[in-house]
Amino acid sequence: MFPERTAVVDTTRSPYARLRPIPAGAVRLEGGFWQARRAANTAAGIPQQFDILKARGALENFRRLAAGIEANTEDFVFRDSDLYKWMEAAAYALLDDDPQTAVIRARLDEAIDAVLPAQGADGYLNTYFGNDPSRRFHNIAVDHELYCAGHFIQAAIAHHRVTGERRLLDAAIRFADYLTTVFGPGLRQEPPGHPEIELALVELYRETGERRYLDLAGFFLERIGIADFTRFEGHAVRAAYCAAGATDYFLETGDPRWRDGLERQWDDMVRTKLYVTGGIGGRYRGESVGTAYELPNQRAYAETCAALATIFWNWRLMQIAGEARYADELERTLYNGALAGVSLDGTRYFYVNPLADHGQAEGDPWYPWARREPYQRQTDFPCNCCPPNVERFLASLPGYFASTSDDGLWVHLYDAARIRWRLADGTPFTLTQHTRYPWDGTITLAIEPERAAEFTLYLRIPAWAPAATLTLNGEPAPGAAPQPGRYLALRRTWQPGDRVSLALDMPVTLLEADARVPETRGSVAVQRGPVIYCAEGVDHGGADVRFARLDASTPLVPHFEADLLGGVTVLDGAGWLLADESPPPALYRPRGQRPPDVLRPARLRLVPYYAWANRGPSSMAVWLLLDGSAK
Amino acid sequence: MFPERTAVVDTTRSPYARLRPIPAGAVRLEGGFWQARRAANTAAGIPQQFDILKARGALENFRRLAAGIEANTEDFVFRDSDLYKWMEAAAYALLDDDPQTAVIRARLDEAIDAVLPAQGADGYLNTYFGNDPSRRFHNIAVDHELYCAGHFIQAAIAHHRVTGERRLLDAAIRFADYLTTVFGPGLRQEPPGHPEIELALVELYRETGERRYLDLAGFFLERIGIADFTRFEGHAVRAAYCAAGATDYFLETGDPRWRDGLERQWDDMVRTKLYVTGGIGGRYRGESVGTAYELPNQRAYAETCAALATIFWNWRLMQIAGEARYADELERTLYNGALAGVSLDGTRYFYVNPLADHGQAEGDPWYPWARREPYQRQTDFPCNCCPPNVERFLASLPGYFASTSDDGLWVHLYDAARIRWRLADGTPFTLTQHTRYPWDGTITLAIEPERAAEFTLYLRIPAWAPAATLTLNGEPAPGAAPQPGRYLALRRTWQPGDRVSLALDMPVTLLEADARVPETRGSVAVQRGPVIYCAEGVDHGGADVRFARLDASTPLVPHFEADLLGGVTVLDGAGWLLADESPPPALYRPRGQRPPDVLRPARLRLVPYYAWANRGPSSMAVWLLLDGSAK
Repeated sequence: MFPERTAVVDTTRSPYARLRPIPAGAVRLEGGFWQARRAANTAAGIPQQFDILKARGALENFRRLAAGIEANTEDFVFRDSDLYKWMEAAAYALLDDDPQTAVIRARLDEAIDAVLPAQGADGYLNTYFGNDPSRRFHNIAVDHELYCAGHFIQAAIAHHRVTGERRLLDAAIRFADYLTTVFGPGLRQEPPGHPEIELALVELYRETGERRYLDLAGFFLERIGIADFTRFEGHAVRAAYCAAGATDYFLETGDPRWRDGLERQWDDMVRTKLYVTGGIGGRYRGESVGTAYELPNQRAYAETCAALATIFWNWRLMQIAGEARYADELERTLYNGALAGVSLDGTRYFYVNPLADHGQAEGDPWYPWARREPYQRQTDFPCNCCPPNVERFLASLPGYFASTSDDGLWVHLYDAARIRWRLADGTPFTLTQHTRYPWDGTITLAIEPERAAEFTLYLRIPAWAPAATLTLNGEPAPGAAPQPGRYLALRRTWQPGDRVSLALDMPVTLLEADARVPETRGSVAVQRGPVIYCAEGVDHGGADVRFARLDASTPLVPHFEADLLGGVTVLDGAGWLLADESPPPALYRPRGQRPPDVLRPARLRLVPYYAWANRGPSSMAVWLLLDGSAK
Repeated sequence: MFPERTAVVDTTRSPYARLRPIPAGAVRLEGGFWQARRAANTAAGIPQQFDILKARGALENFRRLAAGIEANTEDFVFRDSDLYKWMEAAAYALLDDDPQTAVIRARLDEAIDAVLPAQGADGYLNTYFGNDPSRRFHNIAVDHELYCAGHFIQAAIAHHRVTGERRLLDAAIRFADYLTTVFGPGLRQEPPGHPEIELALVELYRETGERRYLDLAGFFLERIGIADFTRFEGHAVRAAYCAAGATDYFLETGDPRWRDGLERQWDDMVRTKLYVTGGIGGRYRGESVGTAYELPNQRAYAETCAALATIFWNWRLMQIAGEARYADELERTLYNGALAGVSLDGTRYFYVNPLADHGQAEGDPWYPWARREPYQRQTDFPCNCCPPNVERFLASLPGYFASTSDDGLWVHLYDAARIRWRLADGTPFTLTQHTRYPWDGTITLAIEPERAAEFTLYLRIPAWAPAATLTLNGEPAPGAAPQPGRYLALRRTWQPGDRVSLALDMPVTLLEADARVPETRGSVAVQRGPVIYCAEGVDHGGADVRFARLDASTPLVPHFEADLLGGVTVLDGAGWLLADESPPPALYRPRGQRPPDVLRPARLRLVPYYAWANRGPSSMAVWLLLDGSAK
C-alpha cells in the first residue's frame, strides 16, 4: 500500500494548478455519511460487479484473445472499459480496512492476469478488434478503441499508485507509446468519438513525466476543437469527459484559449442544461444534453455516468484557482444526481435518473419486448458503463475531500473524517472533522500540525448556507465572515490542538427554476443543506405524488429518522393530493372554464432524492406544485 | 371514372353503421380552403413523390423481383408500402379536373406495370422478402409484411373504385387469399406487429362480399387482443391503425366487447394523450404516445402518420352512430396536427410535428452526422411513410365531407363544395356549401333534392362554437337550437331551393390544459374556429417566441391577410417578449429571490399552426405564457 501516492488527479507539479492533491489514502472516513456508502461499495458492490463482468464474458474476452481465438465481436465494442473501470475501483478499494479487500485483491490479480497476456507485442490491446493490425482504428468516431485505451491507462495508474506494482502501468505505457505512433501530426488525424483517452494521457504524463502523452492529449483535444466550442452540447458523458480532459490539459499548459472555451461551456451547462440534482442530459435521443432549458422531469435521461463526468470536470476546474462555484456544483451532483445512481446497499444501479416517475409499468402492445417494469435499480445493464463507474468513484471519493496549496490547506467536503498529510512546506498535520453532515451543518475541525505553522485554512462555505458562523477555539474568529459560495480563508499560525467550529445553517429552501424551463413553472424543488428532496408515493398511501401540491405556508420540518433509508433527515409538511386521480373530463378547456382539481389535504413527507426507489416501486417527484399555482 | 363507387370507407351495407358513405367522387371542392390544399397535392405533391419513390428504388425493387434478381434487402423492409400509398393517392387524384391527372394516370399505370409482374404465383408479394417461400413470415412482429400487404390491398381497392379496372384488385384478392392459407385458426397465430392489414381486409370484404377476409381481420385483431385493451398506449401509429381496423370490424360484426374496448382507448387518448393540435405521440422513443400527460411541446413526436391514423379512426367511429365528439376530434386533427405535416405548396413534409421550436440548428460534436439543421419540412425522408400518407389522405378528403343515413343527410365538414348524391330512398340531391370557412363561420347550404322529400338534415355544430345560430330560408328555424358538440337535426320536407344559413360563432378562445400536463402550466393555446394558432419568430423580429408572454387583457383581433401564407386569418394582440434572451445568471434560485424576467412590450401576431415553417427557419410556440403567470 502506498497511500502517499494515491492522488485521484495528481496536480502536484501542474504549473497552472493552485491546488495540490491530498491523496485518497491520506483521508480516512470515520463513521459518517460517506463511509456507509463506501463500505457498501467495497463489501458488496465491487465484489458483485466482478461476478457480473465475468458472467458477461469481460475476462473471457481477454483470455480468448490471448489464446488466439477469434475476437468476440458479438459483445459491445466498449466492453473492455467496464472491466478497466472495475479494476480502478478495486485498486482504490484496497485502501480500505474492509475484510473484503483481500478478496478484491485476489480478483483484481485475476483480472490483471487475464488482461495482460492479451496485449499485442506492439502494445495495442482491445478484445473486440483483436491483434490483427488491419482491423484497428477503422472508425475512430464510433469504435471506442481510444475510450477503452483511456480506461485501461486510468486503471493502470490507479493500480500502480495504490499497490506500487508496475506490471499494469508498464502495459499502459506500451499501449500509450503505440498510440503516439498512430495518431499525431503527420499521422492519423481523426478525433476520438468518445473522449476519455485525454484524461488518461494527461494523468500518464503526470505519472511518468513523458511529455509525449500530454502532447497526444492536446492533439486529440485540438482535433475535437473543444477550445472553440461556444456551447455545452451533444452526448452528455462525452461532452463532460472531453471538458474534463481539456481542463487537465489546461492545468499543464495554461493556454487561456482553453480556459475561455471551458468557461463558456461550463457557463452554458449550469445556466441552461443542469438539473437541480446536478444531473445532465435532458434527452434520451443521443443521450444528449439537448437544447437550453430542455429539462423534462419524467423523461430526464441524466445518465449516472454523466453526473460522475461533471464531478470529474468540476474537480479539475477547482484545481485551477480554488473557486468555490465549482465545488458547489460538485457537491450538488455528489449528493443527488450521482448518488441516486446506486442503491443504499451498493448493489443496484440506475443508468437513467428521472426527476419524476409514475411508479408503474409501461406497456407497448406493438413492442412487447420494450415493456418497462416499474422503475427500479438493476444489478447490471447490457450496456453496463454506469455501475463500475459509480464504484470507481465511490472507492476514490476520499481523494476529493481536501487539498493543499502553497499557502495552506483547503477543505472541500464535510463528513466525519481524519486527514493525515503535509503542508506545502512539508509540515505534517492531522485534520479531523467531527460532523453529522449532511443532516446537521455543524462541523468541528481539529487541526493538529506537527508543530506550529502559519498557513491559511480554506473552508468551503456552500452557496446554500446564507448565514454560516464560525468559532476558533470557542471564540469568534476575528475577521472571519463566512460568505456563501466562497472559501473562508483563516490565516494564522496554527497550533496543535486548535479547534474550528463551523456552523452551516441548513434552512429548508424552496427553489424555483428560471421561467424558461417549461416543466417547472409553478413548482418548487426542496433543498436542505446539499440534499435535494423528493416525494415518494410509498410515503403517501400510494398516491401519485407527481400531482401533489405543497402548502408553502406550512413549514417543512426536518426530522432525523435513524431507521429509515439508512438514516436520513426527512422533511414533514403539509399540502394536498389529488382526491381523484382518474383522467379529467377534458384535457383542454377554455380559460376559466377548467374545473379546479379536487384535492384532499394531506401530510407530505419528503425524503432525499438520492434515496428514492429503495422501498419498491413508487411514484416520485422532485418538483412539487405550490398550492396556489395550478389548482 | 366511377365516382359512384369511390367511398373511402364503404359502410353502405355495414350492419352496425348508422352512416352511409357519400363517395369522394360525389363531392366537388369549389375554390375554398381545402381545394387549394388538394390542388397543390395533385399538381405538385403527388407527381414529385413518384419521382422520389423512383429515385429511392421503390419501382426498381419490383422490377428486380420480377426479373428474378436477388431482393434488395438493403432497403427498408416496408418500402413497398410507400409506393402503395402513393398509388392510392394517385387513384383518388384522378377524380380531379387538374390537367396533371393525365400525367398521374400514366405514372400510376407505370407503377402497376412494375408491381404486378413481381407477384408470386401463390399471390404473395413483397420485394424485400422476394418469392422464396422459405424467407417469408419469419418475424411477423417486426417485418412489416402484413403491413405492406394491407397497403397493397387498400391501393387496389381505391384503384378499382376510381377506375373500374380490376387488375390491381384481382392481384390483391390473390394476395389476401394466400394470407388466409397462412394465418388463422390452426395455422400461423402471430399477431401483426404493425397493424394496417386489418383495415384493408375489412374493406376488401366490403368490396367483394367474401367473409373470409373479414374473418381473417378478426383473427388478427383477436390475436392482438385489442378488445381487451384498457389504455391507448405504445407506438402511436400502430395503436391508432389497430383501433381503426377494430372499429371497421365492429361496424360489420357488432360485438359490444369490441366497442367497449375501443371506447376505453379513445377515452384514454383524448383525456390524457392528445395534443391540442390533435397530434399524438409524446415520446420519440418507440414513436410512442408515452404515458398519461406526457405531452412535451418542443420534444413532441406527433408523427404526421399518427395524426392521419386518428382521423381514420375517428371517421370509422363516426359511422357507428353519428356521434359529433368523434367529428370534433377529427376536425381538430384535420386543420392542425395533420395539415401541419405538409407545406402550403404541397411538396415538403414534416414527419415530426413539434408544438414549439427554437428555430435554430442543433449540434452534437460527438455525433456530427446527427446535426439538425433548423427545423423545416423536407421533400422526403429515408423512412418516407408520411409524405405519401398525407397525399392519399388529401386526395380522398372529399369522401369525408358528408354522409347519408336511413333518415337523412349529414354534413360533417364545412367548406365551399358541391355534393351530388342520393338519399337512402334513392332521391337524388345536390347540396352546395357557400362559405369562407375556416376563416368565417357563416355557411350557406343550398339543398336541392330532385323532388320534395322528407328527411333530416344533420349539421355538425362544433364544440368550439358556443352560440351558433341558424336560419331556414331566411327565417329562424322552428325548434332548431344548435348545441355545441352535437349534430343539429332539421327534419322536414325539403324542397328544391331551400336554403339553410348556419352561423358558427368563432370567438378567439384561450385554452388551458389540465394541470397534470407538466409543460403547459400557466400557458394558453389559442383557437379560433377549428384552427389552433401559434406564434412564429419571423413575425417578431426573430425573437424566441417560446418565451413570449400574452397579455390576456388585450383582445386578439382576427384579421384576414389575403397575401400571407396562402390567405389566412391572423390574430393580432399584445404581450411581451424577453428583452434579453441570454441565459439567466442562475437556473435555480430560492423562491422569491428569482429576479423577474426583463420583458419588453410587443405586438404579438399569431398565425395558424398548420402554416408554420413556410417562411424559413423561425422559433415557434403554440402554448404561450400568460402575462401574470411566470414573470
